[in-house]
Amino acid sequence: MLIVQKYGGTSVGNIDRIRAVAERVVKRREERHGIVIVVSAMAGETDRFIDIAGELTGKPNERDMDMLLSSGEIVSASLLSIAINSMGYNAIALTGMQAGIITNTSHTKAKIEDIRAGRVKEAVDSGYIPVIAGFQGITEDFSDITTLGRGGSDLTAVAIASFLKADICEIYTDVDGVYTTDPGIVDKARKLEKISYDEMLELASLGAKVLQARSVEFAKKYEVPIVVRSSFNYSPGTLVVKEDSDMEKVVVSGVACDKNQAKITIRDVPDRPGIAAGLFQSVASNNIVVDMIVQNISSDGKFTDISFTVPKTDAKSALNITKQITGELGAGEATVLEDIAKISIVGVGMRTHSGVAAKMFKTLSDNSINIMMISTSEIKISCIISLKYTELAVRVLHDIFELEKE
Amino acid sequence: MLIVQKYGGTSVGNIDRIRAVAERVVKRREERHGIVIVVSAMAGETDRFIDIAGELTGKPNERDMDMLLSSGEIVSASLLSIAINSMGYNAIALTGMQAGIITNTSHTKAKIEDIRAGRVKEAVDSGYIPVIAGFQGITEDFSDITTLGRGGSDLTAVAIASFLKADICEIYTDVDGVYTTDPGIVDKARKLEKISYDEMLELASLGAKVLQARSVEFAKKYEVPIVVRSSFNYSPGTLVVKEDSDMEKVVVSGVACDKNQAKITIRDVPDRPGIAAGLFQSVASNNIVVDMIVQNISSDGKFTDISFTVPKTDAKSALNITKQITGELGAGEATVLEDIAKISIVGVGMRTHSGVAAKMFKTLSDNSINIMMISTSEIKISCIISLKYTELAVRVLHDIFELEKE
Repeated sequence: MLIVQKYGGTSVGNIDRIRAVAERVVKRREERHGIVIVVSAMAGETDRFIDIAGELTGKPNERDMDMLLSSGEIVSASLLSIAINSMGYNAIALTGMQAGIITNTSHTKAKIEDIRAGRVKEAVDSGYIPVIAGFQGITEDFSDITTLGRGGSDLTAVAIASFLKADICEIYTDVDGVYTTDPGIVDKARKLEKISYDEMLELASLGAKVLQARSVEFAKKYEVPIVVRSSFNYSPGTLVVKEDSDMEKVVVSGVACDKNQAKITIRDVPDRPGIAAGLFQSVASNNIVVDMIVQNISSDGKFTDISFTVPKTDAKSALNITKQITGELGAGEATVLEDIAKISIVGVGMRTHSGVAAKMFKTLSDNSINIMMISTSEIKISCIISLKYTELAVRVLHDIFELEKE
Repeated sequence: MLIVQKYGGTSVGNIDRIRAVAERVVKRREERHGIVIVVSAMAGETDRFIDIAGELTGKPNERDMDMLLSSGEIVSASLLSIAINSMGYNAIALTGMQAGIITNTSHTKAKIEDIRAGRVKEAVDSGYIPVIAGFQGITEDFSDITTLGRGGSDLTAVAIASFLKADICEIYTDVDGVYTTDPGIVDKARKLEKISYDEMLELASLGAKVLQARSVEFAKKYEVPIVVRSSFNYSPGTLVVKEDSDMEKVVVSGVACDKNQAKITIRDVPDRPGIAAGLFQSVASNNIVVDMIVQNISSDGKFTDISFTVPKTDAKSALNITKQITGELGAGEATVLEDIAKISIVGVGMRTHSGVAAKMFKTLSDNSINIMMISTSEIKISCIISLKYTELAVRVLHDIFELEKE
């Protein structure tokens, strides 16, 4: 079997943990599997670098920032490879460039454009354990180091797994799988044995931090089977795979919440075609990702209100852009509301079951939780509510859809 | 003017110092000079990495170790470039690979084989300040990161200066130049205005830490003018250049001491041709650099004694190798003595002045300092003495050769 294993920052957070990971890898190697490792930076390192650069300037230039950040994973990959080598097994640490992760030039959030992992394959074929620095890549002409954005090491692992046609991509983290919801909020939260790519994609996009959304997308596209498990125990974890008929029987698989959202509202926008397009184009061109958008029906045919949500960290710049445009348009006031949360239920069963949305809205309403915005997809319903009701909403939804039951 | 500046670890040891260096660079840039920067890792980082790897294993594999260590300079180069950029000047951080430092594959002590710094030149030509991670290179096929050994950033700077035909290579450190001896030992030690490559080479090889010996060798070969100065003040520093007639008037330019030596002695070695060759070949093949060698004349034509010195860190393995060989040869006991120091006087004037050695030996003898080994070159005389007399020897030699006088 060929296994790609990715270890997150807490899994390699100190020397003892790096040694423990090395032992885990060696154990697996002794079962005669081919093994490829991808590592994140040691926990806290990336933030430490961001802080240091932040002390130098409010706006570090992104190209050099990528070079700075990439060193975090180079350190952990080198150390893990040193540890494995010291146990008498052949390992070789590889930078993102050496592993052939080719990206575009969008520094700090580069996209993978090609995988030229011939060197990784050769290493595996000759009995080596490649230990790849995750999160980083190199531009097409091999001239500049890029990084893939937060959680990018997951993407590195899935990309390498897809290139090597690995049998499984194991994502090791500090939790032992994907839960029906955050166990910190709901005691009865249950670990899922299996989940579909689509559900995982929704959960990841909705703030479940267990897997990076882009890596799930990538895994879905190339059908890379993923298992999410803990590096601190040997619990089997959660399998993320192609949807099967079993999964459809379950209406709701999970409840997610995301407190990292802010809502921007513009009043009295002239109701002309192209207005919204212009606004969201400007926001997007500043690399701000808009999540939910609601435009009310114009009551008088002349003016309307538009609300949209953005990550809290981008709220200030999104508001500035919005204000500039509302000025140009002669629209009304633009305001931002940060005390909000997004509550979502996810399940492939929604495709075939009706009344799920109604049940969600009624449950929230029964608990006096006001819904500010709604957004739905085939397998997901999200509501924006007041921040203070987050935990309550998660609990009542987990209960009403009986997620604690197998 | 085109200036290559190299900043050592203490000069970029923390955020404030990095900012101060950036200001210094910008100031120089404003005088319309072309500037290229080479940096070491932030003070203590390289040692920290070595310690961490040492916690994992007594013998980290060198290839991965180089990858680990190289990240220290990548961090400082990125941060300095971010700082310069934030001041409104164009800077670009470059790894050793990006700067085109091509080396052989001798990990942890690689030798530069080629300099393909086209990218550095292009950057300078288009008004950028390249900030190069020192100490590191890449193998010919661009596949593995190497490091150039302790002090390797000096070598990077000189190599880049030679490639660019820079007008000057400024080595910034925490002392403001080259002194007649260690001012910590002799109060009257005087800063030299100018020193020849050869003298500097001897001083560097003799333990003066201000410049790495290989970089002086490189500078001599390609006639790169170097100035050694402090990054903490604007004192003019010491110029290291080609020998001129002025220099020859001075008999002794400096006194150096090196406490990092150990002496290995083998008794009763069969006096046959090829014995010494075999011994030192074995020592060298373990990458241990032998410094001084003394072989006594055989009294009976059958047996002789051999003594040699090695760096203290290599003493144990050198002794092991030696014992193995003495066993094979049927030679006598091999012993190691670590409480020794090497005292040296250096000066190009020795070439034309006689009696310098005699004066040195007499001075040591007058002070009851026993000489265990002697080694001389055209412009240097070194003596191995007991460690405890180190400071005394330095002081009396500094006095007798009147080094405090201009």
